[in-house]
Amino acid sequence: MKFQAVKGMRDFYPEDMAVLNWILSGWRRVSLRHGFQEFDSPILEYLDLYTLKSGEGIVSELFHLTDRGGRDLAIRPEVTPTLARMVAARANALPRPIKWFCMPRLCRAEKPQRGRGREFFQWNIDIIGVDDPVADAECIFVAADYLREAGLTARDVVIPISDRRLHKGILRGFGLGDDRHEKALALLDKAENVDPGRMHQMWDEAFGAAVPFAPLGRLLAAESIDEFVAIASQVGLTPDSFEGPVADLRQLWSYLDQFGIADYCRFDLHVVRGLAYYTGIVFEIHDRRGQLRAIAGGGRYDNLLQLVGGPAIAAVGFGMGDIVLAELLKDLGRLQGLSTGLDVYVVDAEDGLFADVLKIVAALRRAGVVAEFSYKRQSLGKQIKSASQRGARFVLIVGQKHRQQRVVDIKDMQSGQQREVPADDLLARPQEFLVAAGV
Amino acid sequence: MKFQAVKGMRDFYPEDMAVLNWILSGWRRVSLRHGFQEFDSPILEYLDLYTLKSGEGIVSELFHLTDRGGRDLAIRPEVTPTLARMVAARANALPRPIKWFCMPRLCRAEKPQRGRGREFFQWNIDIIGVDDPVADAECIFVAADYLREAGLTARDVVIPISDRRLHKGILRGFGLGDDRHEKALALLDKAENVDPGRMHQMWDEAFGAAVPFAPLGRLLAAESIDEFVAIASQVGLTPDSFEGPVADLRQLWSYLDQFGIADYCRFDLHVVRGLAYYTGIVFEIHDRRGQLRAIAGGGRYDNLLQLVGGPAIAAVGFGMGDIVLAELLKDLGRLQGLSTGLDVYVVDAEDGLFADVLKIVAALRRAGVVAEFSYKRQSLGKQIKSASQRGARFVLIVGQKHRQQRVVDIKDMQSGQQREVPADDLLARPQEFLVAAGV
Repeated sequence: MKFQAVKGMRDFYPEDMAVLNWILSGWRRVSLRHGFQEFDSPILEYLDLYTLKSGEGIVSELFHLTDRGGRDLAIRPEVTPTLARMVAARANALPRPIKWFCMPRLCRAEKPQRGRGREFFQWNIDIIGVDDPVADAECIFVAADYLREAGLTARDVVIPISDRRLHKGILRGFGLGDDRHEKALALLDKAENVDPGRMHQMWDEAFGAAVPFAPLGRLLAAESIDEFVAIASQVGLTPDSFEGPVADLRQLWSYLDQFGIADYCRFDLHVVRGLAYYTGIVFEIHDRRGQLRAIAGGGRYDNLLQLVGGPAIAAVGFGMGDIVLAELLKDLGRLQGLSTGLDVYVVDAEDGLFADVLKIVAALRRAGVVAEFSYKRQSLGKQIKSASQRGARFVLIVGQKHRQQRVVDIKDMQSGQQREVPADDLLARPQEFLVAAGV
Repeated sequence: MKFQAVKGMRDFYPEDMAVLNWILSGWRRVSLRHGFQEFDSPILEYLDLYTLKSGEGIVSELFHLTDRGGRDLAIRPEVTPTLARMVAARANALPRPIKWFCMPRLCRAEKPQRGRGREFFQWNIDIIGVDDPVADAECIFVAADYLREAGLTARDVVIPISDRRLHKGILRGFGLGDDRHEKALALLDKAENVDPGRMHQMWDEAFGAAVPFAPLGRLLAAESIDEFVAIASQVGLTPDSFEGPVADLRQLWSYLDQFGIADYCRFDLHVVRGLAYYTGIVFEIHDRRGQLRAIAGGGRYDNLLQLVGGPAIAAVGFGMGDIVLAELLKDLGRLQGLSTGLDVYVVDAEDGLFADVLKIVAALRRAGVVAEFSYKRQSLGKQIKSASQRGARFVLIVGQKHRQQRVVDIKDMQSGQQREVPADDLLARPQEFLVAAGV
């Protein structure tokens, strides 16, 4: 009987883990330098945390179970409700602004397909307690700074930015009742994955009587804030429905410019975001070639904390998954040579020196050096071959000279050069002798 | 409606996360320098992977569910079966020895109690493909090296070491059939948590007819290999039942000595380990005061790979959980001052300079400096107070001089000293100007 990984989930063999760790450590390093603090939560939450916000319909998309105490639990499919719960629980004690990040493992009971697994890791950046667009801009800056550091330039990726208040302003301007806005936004969110003709038809069937598709399409196609304002006026919408969001977006763009990342960003009302809790500016990250799913998505969600029993606090954030990101990095050849080798491989050149090898290995490791040795007592040549296969930077040869004078040979595996070193000096200051390796 | 974390599971607020990350990063650093490679696996496995080895009885201890495709899944309660599955799937392709580590999140549907949560992290170190006790010794060395680095000396913790083949040799020597050994070992494993009188009674009821408790107790109390051999002879057991394990244990001790960690180790047959898959040397790690549960446990499991459909390969490893470890470190005061502050907090000393603050913050962060600023335009004093609360090492003051000559003031928050620096020089080489902070 052979066992496999659960369908749609990934085993991380060491070469896969090297990629995942490279992504996770980059997310963490960038988060910290932007002043964010890390948090995490259990893999399981009470099922109610998700059904409260999204209704019972969400249950089929979750891995859920009932524990021995009869509690309904679910594996977290996203971390934003958890964040809202944790902040709400200490809302008065936490100093504001709250700038938190996390990199949770999440599961969704979806059909596996390209760029979408049933388990993945998601970088989450959130700022809570700030309603000024400077917080939205900072979230986008953190994302762009990570992309740049990961080798993704503004030629590789784009950050389309929109505002749900503009969508709602359009719908309201055409006379569509507020109670139908969520459904209309959900349909617009599908536009990305549906061909335009079919979209036109679906829209007409659902909302055509209230909102004609042609002017809506013109508005969504606006490539700048100014162009949007001009088209809105042409199609007969009054400017006061848009004043707030337009001013915020202009302010946002000025911040993006000061942060030096405006080249990554584009005004694009096609971004709607599927989740109902977004209330203002929303954004995504896409590959410029448009071949992959969104790399990230986020926006402002000013009402979510109240929904989970907390006070009314402004909030903005984004999530970036590891799967699409890794696909893009791989396509662009940015995931080469991530596995790291050994610093030193210690070998014995003759019988009776294995105890010395173990003592030297122990001393090197204690000093922080990545040191390895052969479990098998075999020829010097075979041991050096093993060292080479493991990517060792240096080989330390313990032979006759060590027995007599406590002197070892260090062989540089790149240059092939070999030199003698007193063992005691090496063990007292290993970094000094192995400095060429960047150890 | 207020939501809480699932019962028996932990939220990691930033101060808790700092502790967890300190533990996880130590585990990883030590693993790497001992030549181990990291792997990971999905949080869910097919339920069969656990019932195959442990029977249906294990199901009540698992968080398990059925997915939409009707598959029975469980959240992993330990990672060793997963490791066996992954190695078995590539048994012929993976170079030996296989030295892997991981730090998985695990869940068990147990009753929460001190030192035992329903969710925890567990460091796993495993060596596969080596039957010599040098591999057992190296696993113990890795554990001891981590303990030492975490500040736990041989006065704080002890590593009792035993061998299941000795237990089986004793039982066999007294004539107990092999088919009853697992049950007898399971009972002996409970001795730690049961008072001696009750243990004596339980033993007599179950196995007293075959194995008298008095000589068994004397053998288990042996404090060295030599003492064990002497008592075995006194109670009438023939030495040939023990020759293999006694030789291996002597060899193990010689390796432990060469690795320089024998002071952490103790021969102690009270260590049995509950899991049925152990086949040879077994060990645990305990606090010397004996107040906590085991910090770690492990041993040799030479048959597990075959059980999951792989070839017969020798294997040895251990697991160390984060909960008891953190309790001990906390009790001993080793978890102080783990939260790290900011490198720089950038403030504006007057109106109209916020754009400059954002540009400077952006340049510092891009250069890898942990830089922060105030979202609110408020007085210099209030901003410096915020900087102090956030633990900033330096404050960068952007004022009139910046507008006129592009010069900023750097205030050292430890010494209180302040000096002028040209902004362009600072942004070109921030590390040089902030070197006092160890940035």
